[in-house]
Amino acid sequence: MMESASHEKVGLLASWWVRLTAMPNMIACKVSEIAKNTKKLGQDDPRRVFHSLKVGFALTLVSLFYYYQPLYDNFGVSAMWAVMTVVVVFEFSVGATLGKGLNRALATLLAGALGIGAHHLASLSGQIGEPIVIGFFVFLQAATSTFIRFFPQIKARYDYGLLIFILTFSLISVSGFRDDEILELAHKRLATIFIGGSACVIISIVVCPVWAGEDLHNLIAANIENLGSFLEGFGDEYFKTLEDAESKDDKAFLQAYKSALNSKSSEESLANFARWEPGHGRFHFCHPWKQYLKVATLTRQCAYRIEALHSRLTADNKVSPEILNIIQESCTKLSLETGKALKELAAAFKEMTKSPSPETHMAKAKAAAKSLRSLLKSGLWEDTELLEVMPAATVGSLLLDVVNCSEKIIESVNELAFLANFKTVEATVSQEKSQLGKLDTKEKNPNMDVVVTIAEAPSVLPENGKKVGSQQMEV
Amino acid sequence: MMESASHEKVGLLASWWVRLTAMPNMIACKVSEIAKNTKKLGQDDPRRVFHSLKVGFALTLVSLFYYYQPLYDNFGVSAMWAVMTVVVVFEFSVGATLGKGLNRALATLLAGALGIGAHHLASLSGQIGEPIVIGFFVFLQAATSTFIRFFPQIKARYDYGLLIFILTFSLISVSGFRDDEILELAHKRLATIFIGGSACVIISIVVCPVWAGEDLHNLIAANIENLGSFLEGFGDEYFKTLEDAESKDDKAFLQAYKSALNSKSSEESLANFARWEPGHGRFHFCHPWKQYLKVATLTRQCAYRIEALHSRLTADNKVSPEILNIIQESCTKLSLETGKALKELAAAFKEMTKSPSPETHMAKAKAAAKSLRSLLKSGLWEDTELLEVMPAATVGSLLLDVVNCSEKIIESVNELAFLANFKTVEATVSQEKSQLGKLDTKEKNPNMDVVVTIAEAPSVLPENGKKVGSQQMEV
Repeated sequence: MMESASHEKVGLLASWWVRLTAMPNMIACKVSEIAKNTKKLGQDDPRRVFHSLKVGFALTLVSLFYYYQPLYDNFGVSAMWAVMTVVVVFEFSVGATLGKGLNRALATLLAGALGIGAHHLASLSGQIGEPIVIGFFVFLQAATSTFIRFFPQIKARYDYGLLIFILTFSLISVSGFRDDEILELAHKRLATIFIGGSACVIISIVVCPVWAGEDLHNLIAANIENLGSFLEGFGDEYFKTLEDAESKDDKAFLQAYKSALNSKSSEESLANFARWEPGHGRFHFCHPWKQYLKVATLTRQCAYRIEALHSRLTADNKVSPEILNIIQESCTKLSLETGKALKELAAAFKEMTKSPSPETHMAKAKAAAKSLRSLLKSGLWEDTELLEVMPAATVGSLLLDVVNCSEKIIESVNELAFLANFKTVEATVSQEKSQLGKLDTKEKNPNMDVVVTIAEAPSVLPENGKKVGSQQMEV
Repeated sequence: MMESASHEKVGLLASWWVRLTAMPNMIACKVSEIAKNTKKLGQDDPRRVFHSLKVGFALTLVSLFYYYQPLYDNFGVSAMWAVMTVVVVFEFSVGATLGKGLNRALATLLAGALGIGAHHLASLSGQIGEPIVIGFFVFLQAATSTFIRFFPQIKARYDYGLLIFILTFSLISVSGFRDDEILELAHKRLATIFIGGSACVIISIVVCPVWAGEDLHNLIAANIENLGSFLEGFGDEYFKTLEDAESKDDKAFLQAYKSALNSKSSEESLANFARWEPGHGRFHFCHPWKQYLKVATLTRQCAYRIEALHSRLTADNKVSPEILNIIQESCTKLSLETGKALKELAAAFKEMTKSPSPETHMAKAKAAAKSLRSLLKSGLWEDTELLEVMPAATVGSLLLDVVNCSEKIIESVNELAFLANFKTVEATVSQEKSQLGKLDTKEKNPNMDVVVTIAEAPSVLPENGKKVGSQQMEV
């Protein structure tokens, strides 16, 4: 008995020892995982690292108020508000920082004035009445402002301002009950908030600025491009999948379109931030951000159709090879040309140029659609069961839907190009365009690329655009 | 000449006069519009009004610190932090309030301790070294914490905590440079933040609580129900639309499903809030909120298919009446039964019960799918052009897809029901179930409703559930 107990003890000790020796390994493993994640986060978007350094810099700068006697003598404890403003206002993009800064400054100004007014009114009602009147005012403005924050239009742009309004009004009217130097307090607070806010705005604009407008522009271009990549590859992938059941859709270009499905909320917040931003680079102050949201909505609707198409890739359908052979060519061409049109559109959109090549591809896609329709009309199908044709017919029909959606996207981008004065590029496609009427699916050179020469090329490159932006800012 | 000039003057005056007299009308119009919007906002969700009143009440309560001498003597100007905490922490739902409150309290505690430590370290480095060392610490922690905020998992739950960490560390370490009573300051600040935070949490839980978990539960139930309503009505609507081109889809039940398309971000934030909430009513503390998100994802995928179906309603298709007559019955039945299954599922899910009736309807839908397939296999189609059949075939194929998606939704809800211990209801469907194998599309009583009796009925009613919740809270 005793021996087994001591054996047990030894076993327990041994297992503890094993765990203890394994611990450094485990910790090292965890640490290296965190380090890998951190590195990836920084590499995915290096602006994150710069943003962190900018916040640290702004905060250290504002702390100077405390370090140097002359500045401290002026502002005293109020300098705290500058630190607070920097921490709360400094956001990732210029637009968000500007929006929060302006909201904070205006709300503090307005609420300060009203707070002083409320304090004055309350002081007229005597020793006992004063706290009751002030309590009533605080309750009334807090309840009203909180309710106003529920209005969707106000929530989108002025939510932070209303929060600060409630805060400042309460603090001023309540502390006014104690502090008779209320005007000086309000003045100091405003001055320090102004200093903190402008430090944020200046640093966020001057040092590696992150423009929400540019992000929105690139996000929408990337979404359109992802739809295009999917469509370019879809035809081949679908008919290959049906032929040999082995290949499954683990390819990146078949998954990328999903980013467009759920980007609504980020697009809306980026557009809201962008509206605060001054003109920069290729974007001017009243850039038509609303039209961007329209393009985004149409892109998302197209992505829904593509999601339905994508589900056909993995569906277990038995389609006979004969049927596939008949429609393969026109379906593949239809999908390929629509994809090319969207990719060309995304490329031109990204560079903020007008290009005729999406429409050229679109015309080819429509020609392919026409030939698909005439194929479906022909008598080739009489001996086949409808159930066998159905999957192929569904893909065809969804593809025709996608062509319609893509046309709408191209239309709305053209409208945006008009509103935002995109530059026109000269293309060597005029000759080709005139032949479009005669195009059929059996043209000799189906992979002929449209050669586009960009007029005023240097001015539309993004690097140059950024330079122009920072030059404007330095002035 | 002069006469015409004076005429012009009179004309100008008259037009001004017209505008001036119209102004009161215009203002009245605008005011009544705003009043209407406000009323609608309150009526849509009366909890918004209650929330506004609650915030006003909490803020007035906390202002007591300033009004009464004994309390003021204890805390002094630090009472400001209680006001600030209430304004910033009080959110619409209990979960959001709790999450922010805990984040704020813990971050203040941690940052306060580290800030005092940093201050002590800096004070060892002499008169000149002190500001440099403190500046270095402030920069380092601000940059690091800002970068950590970019990690998606941390951003979802601890973003506010990190913000407060940066704020408190900077304020304490910097103001510590001046104020030697730093420990007392830290203690007062913590105490006032604790008072403000607990006022928010108690009021938000005791007075008309808004539970994020319940909102998430209801949102997902509503989304599933909306999909069901669409499917229930789709069959009739589609075949009617094709027969007379007049009727267009302006009906509410055909649009409601769109809410499911873009609800991802609100579902995710509700789930994040819900994880902070204590057990309440029918939800316990470790409720499987992650499974809710899985159900939501599958619902959204089904909504994408339905979006494709919806686009068929407005597409200009010419389908011959003969074709329609052949597939109408099985398609309508398929859509109707899937819709019923989803609606029953939503109803049972909302009440947190397990019900066998969705599966009953699903089995009928599958039977309809089988008969649709056999119809498509039959030789009825040999004389028709494929192009004419295609729209109908697409609808059929999409409907079959929707059946698959709906099955997945039912499966994941069942999994959720298991994880969250939903109550089982006894249903008088066992007899019917055994006959399901024999069901065909021409059964005698296609509209036979499944009668379900709910066991322990009172305990699953939502009113009762709420009562249980508030009783738990009072303890």
